[in-house]
Amino acid sequence: MGSDPPGLTWTLIEQARERIAPLISPTPVLTSTTLDAHAGARLFFKCENLQKGGAFKARGASNAVFALPEAQVRRGVATHSSGNHAAALARAARLRGVPAYIVMPDNTPLAKRAAVERQGASVRLCAPSLAARERAAAEIIAATGAVLVHPYDDLAVMAGQATVAVELLEQVPDLDLLLAPVSGGGLLSGIAVATRTLRPGARVLGVEPAGADDAARSLRAGRIVPCERPDTIADGLRATVGVRPFAEIRRYVADIVTVSDEAIIAAMRCIWEVMKIVVEPSGATAYAAIAAARTEVRGLRVGVVLSGGNVDLDSLPWITRARG
Amino acid sequence: MGSDPPGLTWTLIEQARERIAPLISPTPVLTSTTLDAHAGARLFFKCENLQKGGAFKARGASNAVFALPEAQVRRGVATHSSGNHAAALARAARLRGVPAYIVMPDNTPLAKRAAVERQGASVRLCAPSLAARERAAAEIIAATGAVLVHPYDDLAVMAGQATVAVELLEQVPDLDLLLAPVSGGGLLSGIAVATRTLRPGARVLGVEPAGADDAARSLRAGRIVPCERPDTIADGLRATVGVRPFAEIRRYVADIVTVSDEAIIAAMRCIWEVMKIVVEPSGATAYAAIAAARTEVRGLRVGVVLSGGNVDLDSLPWITRARG
Repeated sequence: MGSDPPGLTWTLIEQARERIAPLISPTPVLTSTTLDAHAGARLFFKCENLQKGGAFKARGASNAVFALPEAQVRRGVATHSSGNHAAALARAARLRGVPAYIVMPDNTPLAKRAAVERQGASVRLCAPSLAARERAAAEIIAATGAVLVHPYDDLAVMAGQATVAVELLEQVPDLDLLLAPVSGGGLLSGIAVATRTLRPGARVLGVEPAGADDAARSLRAGRIVPCERPDTIADGLRATVGVRPFAEIRRYVADIVTVSDEAIIAAMRCIWEVMKIVVEPSGATAYAAIAAARTEVRGLRVGVVLSGGNVDLDSLPWITRARG
Repeated sequence: MGSDPPGLTWTLIEQARERIAPLISPTPVLTSTTLDAHAGARLFFKCENLQKGGAFKARGASNAVFALPEAQVRRGVATHSSGNHAAALARAARLRGVPAYIVMPDNTPLAKRAAVERQGASVRLCAPSLAARERAAAEIIAATGAVLVHPYDDLAVMAGQATVAVELLEQVPDLDLLLAPVSGGGLLSGIAVATRTLRPGARVLGVEPAGADDAARSLRAGRIVPCERPDTIADGLRATVGVRPFAEIRRYVADIVTVSDEAIIAAMRCIWEVMKIVVEPSGATAYAAIAAARTEVRGLRVGVVLSGGNVDLDSLPWITRARG
């Protein structure tokens, strides 16, 4: 891997906090005596499903877009993504008043494409492979002069996601443990660096679907081991961990545990039923590690990041799977 | 109707606020730029679906149980209800350390019965008619000496429900209009009295399903006109307005508008999708009046009470109705 890339610093996170304050919502922390009793712990759920656009991605995308100098950003921003980052980037570009170009695989659900177009972004479809996506994005950037905003392998994006932990540790200062899902690692690495500064005694743990466990395997191997064929219901957690996030995760994350899709679905349903909030499978993954006893939390004060709530209400896994 | 019964006073509401503070959760107010744009108004959603037990009923039941003198309450409390009041009363009794006796019709869904039994209450089943329920409750009270806590026709219950508005008007002081669903009227009457004191210039509007529009018809008639055969998906809104609530509603509620079941289901789905929170049909009814343009809100600052979130996740109306 050669030498480490420049790292995420507390200064970048502080700047992000200030920069995005007018652009995002502070999200509530919810608690449940029922789920506390199940876990034998005090759980503090950080509700990023209630964030603008329904996911924490608004934080990183807003920070990246607003951190760019006017001369650079005025030709627009671009990314390739079928998920929450695409809509968040489109929103941030609209707020800054610059164009957004989004490359999406042509098998992207219509609802996700519509969410991006509602924000005024230009959508370009491509074949559903990483190579095709990267090629299409490169063509757009060459033609327009837009700046690529990577969904996670970008310090400004990571600094934005880190504000989840800054906010949570203001709301609940005395946490022993923080749990967050990991995909490309932007969120987990940001949380780890922020926690290291604000509450160095607390542990940070990543949670990953067993069917897309590249980050867990990478952490054990000490180098990035891509997931060749991610297979999980958590559609937000299929990416391979990025170089910059991985460098922070190696330094500051205690461990990454994995959970089955069954555990994710059960956790998702439990959160809907008991807490009365809508989380997507990726958003329930951190709690799944507690509900399925994949990590020891007894007696601890635990922050649990519910990362997003964008689901298709016509096909809920406990209904479609029972039928299928 | 003879002379009016004693009314709900601001003093009773203030006492309720203090009494139940340690027993309930303050609930967040959520906003959505998307729903604001649809409505052409600023909407402030008071999330009682995130209340203890998933409904505002925790407020009234806690106030009623903890307001009773020790000598009266020690033999327990009783009610007949298949819904959220039963579970809320069982919880309040458990917290006070006294027995709860709940009469439920024998067609009550198992999940609702289980929710009451989890709180340690004794459940007695009866035939699904009001006469059978009242008879069974009277028998239990005669045998045990328990005190009846009516779900809405009770000043202590009404004072507890009124704290929804006290809290909301602290969170958002400058509302022009407050919308709440109406069934027996405990919530709406409480909100109307509290608003009259705290923000006399604001209007309070009730919203009722068209298939259970007794309160709207009663308000027009100037006397209680019971609903003989309530027919609505909003299972929490089928009761006929009570004598004590109706007296306050006549005095302080500007109007009661009705909404169709289709509008309720659409509003419910919209809240899940856009706001990422789980509301039951009754809980979405107040917003349905805005989404279906049953009342003029353009340019106003509007408080919308989302009253509860207890739904069966295996049978969601937009799925079961499409199939059936």
